[in-house]
Amino acid sequence: MLQFGFDIGGTNIAGGIVDDDANILVKAERRFPKGEGVVAVLNVLQDMFLGLCRELRISKYLIAAVGAAIPGSITFDGASVIDAHNLDFHNVPFKAMLRQRIDTPVYLQNDANAATLAELVSGSLKGCKTAALLTLGTGVGGGLIINGRLFNGGRNMGVELGHMLLKSGGEPCTCGNLGCVESYCSASSLCREYGTDSAKRVFEAAEAGDKRAQTVLDRYIDDLGSAIASIVNLIDPERIALGGGVSHAGDRLLAPLSENVKKKCFFPSCPPIVRAHHGNDAGIIGAAMAHQYQ
Amino acid sequence: MLQFGFDIGGTNIAGGIVDDDANILVKAERRFPKGEGVVAVLNVLQDMFLGLCRELRISKYLIAAVGAAIPGSITFDGASVIDAHNLDFHNVPFKAMLRQRIDTPVYLQNDANAATLAELVSGSLKGCKTAALLTLGTGVGGGLIINGRLFNGGRNMGVELGHMLLKSGGEPCTCGNLGCVESYCSASSLCREYGTDSAKRVFEAAEAGDKRAQTVLDRYIDDLGSAIASIVNLIDPERIALGGGVSHAGDRLLAPLSENVKKKCFFPSCPPIVRAHHGNDAGIIGAAMAHQYQ
Repeated sequence: MLQFGFDIGGTNIAGGIVDDDANILVKAERRFPKGEGVVAVLNVLQDMFLGLCRELRISKYLIAAVGAAIPGSITFDGASVIDAHNLDFHNVPFKAMLRQRIDTPVYLQNDANAATLAELVSGSLKGCKTAALLTLGTGVGGGLIINGRLFNGGRNMGVELGHMLLKSGGEPCTCGNLGCVESYCSASSLCREYGTDSAKRVFEAAEAGDKRAQTVLDRYIDDLGSAIASIVNLIDPERIALGGGVSHAGDRLLAPLSENVKKKCFFPSCPPIVRAHHGNDAGIIGAAMAHQYQ
Repeated sequence: MLQFGFDIGGTNIAGGIVDDDANILVKAERRFPKGEGVVAVLNVLQDMFLGLCRELRISKYLIAAVGAAIPGSITFDGASVIDAHNLDFHNVPFKAMLRQRIDTPVYLQNDANAATLAELVSGSLKGCKTAALLTLGTGVGGGLIINGRLFNGGRNMGVELGHMLLKSGGEPCTCGNLGCVESYCSASSLCREYGTDSAKRVFEAAEAGDKRAQTVLDRYIDDLGSAIASIVNLIDPERIALGGGVSHAGDRLLAPLSENVKKKCFFPSCPPIVRAHHGNDAGIIGAAMAHQYQ
């Protein structure tokens, strides 16, 4: 079976045709038509969809379903985008609108859930019944796998790994709360504390012997270790994957972090912490596979 | 159908026969034979089991299953108690031993899970697909319901709601970590801070205008609110029930706590926080019903 995935971001829209083994056969990227409204977005999507079918020399009727990963909240029934601030979408019945344009079943999904599903289907969380993906970027997001399926929260409004409280009453968070995981564990928080715009630079400076960089990194790893230990002690996943900018540090992050979590884990053994497998393609793959994991 | 539940504690053993609507038909309590070994415990259990069957004037073969709630960890397969420190049980194949004595199928369960199951079957969490029970006693324990069933952690080693981190690097916890929920939200922590041995007294003093009691209570409610907000923002349960000594304060706790959680909840609405329904009977009921919820 073939399926199509869109990853709709506030800067770019990526799309691709994906096979049942989660390989992307063809893909493309276009600029998001900022400020031009929903119709302009639908024009871009329709054009990409038909263009990639042509490129693969297949009829559009060979595409079983189209998924769209959206950076925002989706209604319970998966029909509408409630709020996606970066797209300026508010209460948009996007499922029906896109379906009408491309004449194929459409599935909407939050982008963090799409990335988590991509890791479950063919990435770092493959085969897990219970697992978590944590993305360490501008903010902290992610998703949960429970009982082998994507878990979208008990009231189907999503999961907010970045807004667990790490230091009750601590630093202000963008959500209005004090002391959220995101305030201490985002790439932004790491960069801001050292005074750079690249998480990579903090790791490099520490490795070159810069003591201030090492102090900043020690604080960051201790806080991230506490956030992960909270998740472990609550739901004890089999595996935890890290994505986003900070995860590119690889073992320089994973080795000390794993040691830190081990000390804070309540259970006799600690689940492995690994790097997420799919980088920028996670949205396309997760969106495409969504219809098989409803 | 009839089933039998044991709630085995380090001070007392409670047992009862339970019908399918989770009513206890007869029950009894005996002293835990401290320091006398597993065989002495089995003697007590066999005696209680046969005695209560006689009291109800039924054959023991009318009992479909026997459950035992244990204050400790159970192996994956439910066959053995790994560690139950208050019972001095370590690696005890208790399922087979008890089954041999009473000639009826036996199910072992952690006591916090048994209490959670009791609330799901016929108490404050009835009808919930996703919910949490938090018990505020000497420590902080509890359980999770996910997808309508008891969730025993991704690696089947339990869930530790009291050992999520509330203030990374904060107060020492009995588990060896710093800043766990238990260090701030147990009844013990509330009592210790005010200098009493009864949580009730702190609430009464605050109500009578004692400003120090009110300050202690404000701190406690703010921290408990943060712990609950962490659970809400991570898995967004439909309902949260509170048990244990502190929960007896009722609305004097629940009203300000609900306000506090509402402020910290990421979602547009906040799940209700209610008092657990089953008090001391929760262990008997949950243990008895375990075989129907495997």
